[in-house]
Amino acid sequence: MLIEKETPENERPDTFLREADDSSSSSNSLGGSPSSVRARFEKMIREAQDSVCAAVEAADGGAKFKEDVWSRPGGGGGISRVLQDGDVWEKAGVNVSVVYGVMPPEAYRAAKGDNSATKPGPVPFFAAGISSVLHPKNPFAPTLHFNYRYFETDAPKDAPGAPRQWWFGGGTDLTPAYIFEEDVKHFHSVQKSACDKFDPSFYPRFKKWCDDYFVIKHRGERRGLGGIFFDDLNDYDQEMLLAFATECANSVVPAYLPIIERRKDTSFTEQHKAWQQLRRGRYVEFNLVYDRGTTFGLKTGGRIESILVSLPLTARWEYDHQPEEGSEEWKLLDACINPKEWI
Amino acid sequence: MLIEKETPENERPDTFLREADDSSSSSNSLGGSPSSVRARFEKMIREAQDSVCAAVEAADGGAKFKEDVWSRPGGGGGISRVLQDGDVWEKAGVNVSVVYGVMPPEAYRAAKGDNSATKPGPVPFFAAGISSVLHPKNPFAPTLHFNYRYFETDAPKDAPGAPRQWWFGGGTDLTPAYIFEEDVKHFHSVQKSACDKFDPSFYPRFKKWCDDYFVIKHRGERRGLGGIFFDDLNDYDQEMLLAFATECANSVVPAYLPIIERRKDTSFTEQHKAWQQLRRGRYVEFNLVYDRGTTFGLKTGGRIESILVSLPLTARWEYDHQPEEGSEEWKLLDACINPKEWI
Repeated sequence: MLIEKETPENERPDTFLREADDSSSSSNSLGGSPSSVRARFEKMIREAQDSVCAAVEAADGGAKFKEDVWSRPGGGGGISRVLQDGDVWEKAGVNVSVVYGVMPPEAYRAAKGDNSATKPGPVPFFAAGISSVLHPKNPFAPTLHFNYRYFETDAPKDAPGAPRQWWFGGGTDLTPAYIFEEDVKHFHSVQKSACDKFDPSFYPRFKKWCDDYFVIKHRGERRGLGGIFFDDLNDYDQEMLLAFATECANSVVPAYLPIIERRKDTSFTEQHKAWQQLRRGRYVEFNLVYDRGTTFGLKTGGRIESILVSLPLTARWEYDHQPEEGSEEWKLLDACINPKEWI
Repeated sequence: MLIEKETPENERPDTFLREADDSSSSSNSLGGSPSSVRARFEKMIREAQDSVCAAVEAADGGAKFKEDVWSRPGGGGGISRVLQDGDVWEKAGVNVSVVYGVMPPEAYRAAKGDNSATKPGPVPFFAAGISSVLHPKNPFAPTLHFNYRYFETDAPKDAPGAPRQWWFGGGTDLTPAYIFEEDVKHFHSVQKSACDKFDPSFYPRFKKWCDDYFVIKHRGERRGLGGIFFDDLNDYDQEMLLAFATECANSVVPAYLPIIERRKDTSFTEQHKAWQQLRRGRYVEFNLVYDRGTTFGLKTGGRIESILVSLPLTARWEYDHQPEEGSEEWKLLDACINPKEWI
């Protein structure tokens, strides 16, 4: 499953959709018109990119986002925005991308749980997503990650009338080096409010999914204090899930920025900074060894600099570092080993 | 293929071999007596650990190695030695380990190229090795990695008379942030001399193997300037390969220490240091994503702190960093993309 090489563009196009997907002549809600889910999801993630970047730039006050736009010959492309060495953030990346690809039938069947004996051909797919990691400088200000994506298959060529398949995935999670209970409670409360607008089962289920996903297996610890995470979600109304993903993306700024405002200027010691750097090392371990998006992107030839913008500016590995029992560092580690209910 | 949990030991045992392997009652050269290859390989790697650590401590002048010894209930164990925050090296790890394990028959058959239709049971194996990464502080002083290992299967239980299988693997490679031709030539010359004592085909073959192995595939570049590398080597006389691995291990100090003496006190700027840190980031990418020993160790439950001592103390990732064409940084990158003949 390889992706075409990308080419840089000088300007942001209005859409990365293929012309056939962007035509206003069709009113089909799958593919087709501007009212299609493909088109509305792309519009949503591009607006989310704009609003998150605007809020981050305003809070940073120092650096501005640098933008790279690219496209692929067969359709699709992306916009990477990176703010580096700001006053508040040492590295902040907010990317959107649209991919047209072809997946091997095994992957499609595995995802669909389809065990039928008929052997289908390769399945063309459409995927669009926003992905972001924000690493602040101050060791008391947490790292934030969020990612929302929509996935849709084309009808197979040998069965043009067959129903298309679609999934939503994503989540928002918080990775501090030190625990401030009020910060973690606030963050999780905003996630819960977004979830509760749609289904009371969402927050408990997606909170646990997040705790189970961001595990550094070889350490038996999570990279941070979680949030929400879901994948391959299609067993709800499609319009409802599009609205839910939109609500989640719109919750990033109110969930995160108030925490940054409270912690960005807290004074700290070299020891605090060294501990933050060790936790950044754990972030690198998770992303390079376990994160599906990262490992998939590296193997399939995605745009490397966009994929690896999630890595921190700097990280640290000390041999056999063990925080003193009862210390603030130990409390963070304990919460990464034994996930807690925050609200 | 999971490894038992290790337990810390207060003292270095004379040997990590199982009693049955350490008995002097047998004169069989496979398994058995102190003259067995197992016993002589363990002795060789422990002597190499002592001599490399002594040379590194003497050159560092500041810090000393900290030692951790551990064993596993079913036999085997290891000694990790780590020097951190020295005058010359920011992190230097030299580990030896002995592992008794059981491999699935598929792995054994794949390694042996055995396509016979008979279905063997799980294969008990013995593996011993020395593994080391030395990361200096000065950006003009290169990182060194070496690793030598010996692998042997037990006779299968359902065929006690069947021949045992064995392999040697390993290599020594150099990863500078800046190229000093005389350093790289010296390093490769010592590798070639060690190889030439045994077979004139070794250096060209193992030099290319090294260039082909240490590739960061998603970047299309190597992590450094190579050296020698070989794996699954068994198509030579066993005594000859044991002597060759010993010669290679003994060549580490003369290949590396003269370079360190020349570069450890060179004055440098913040820019030199930042470039070294970016290259350290590439080192992390290779080790966590591609290195077989690391990824295998993380998945099978090896001792995490020993495995990850190969990671640098600190590393850096800047978005889309491109060295200026013709600069010293660009020359290093070019040599990592297009491997050169140094001698």
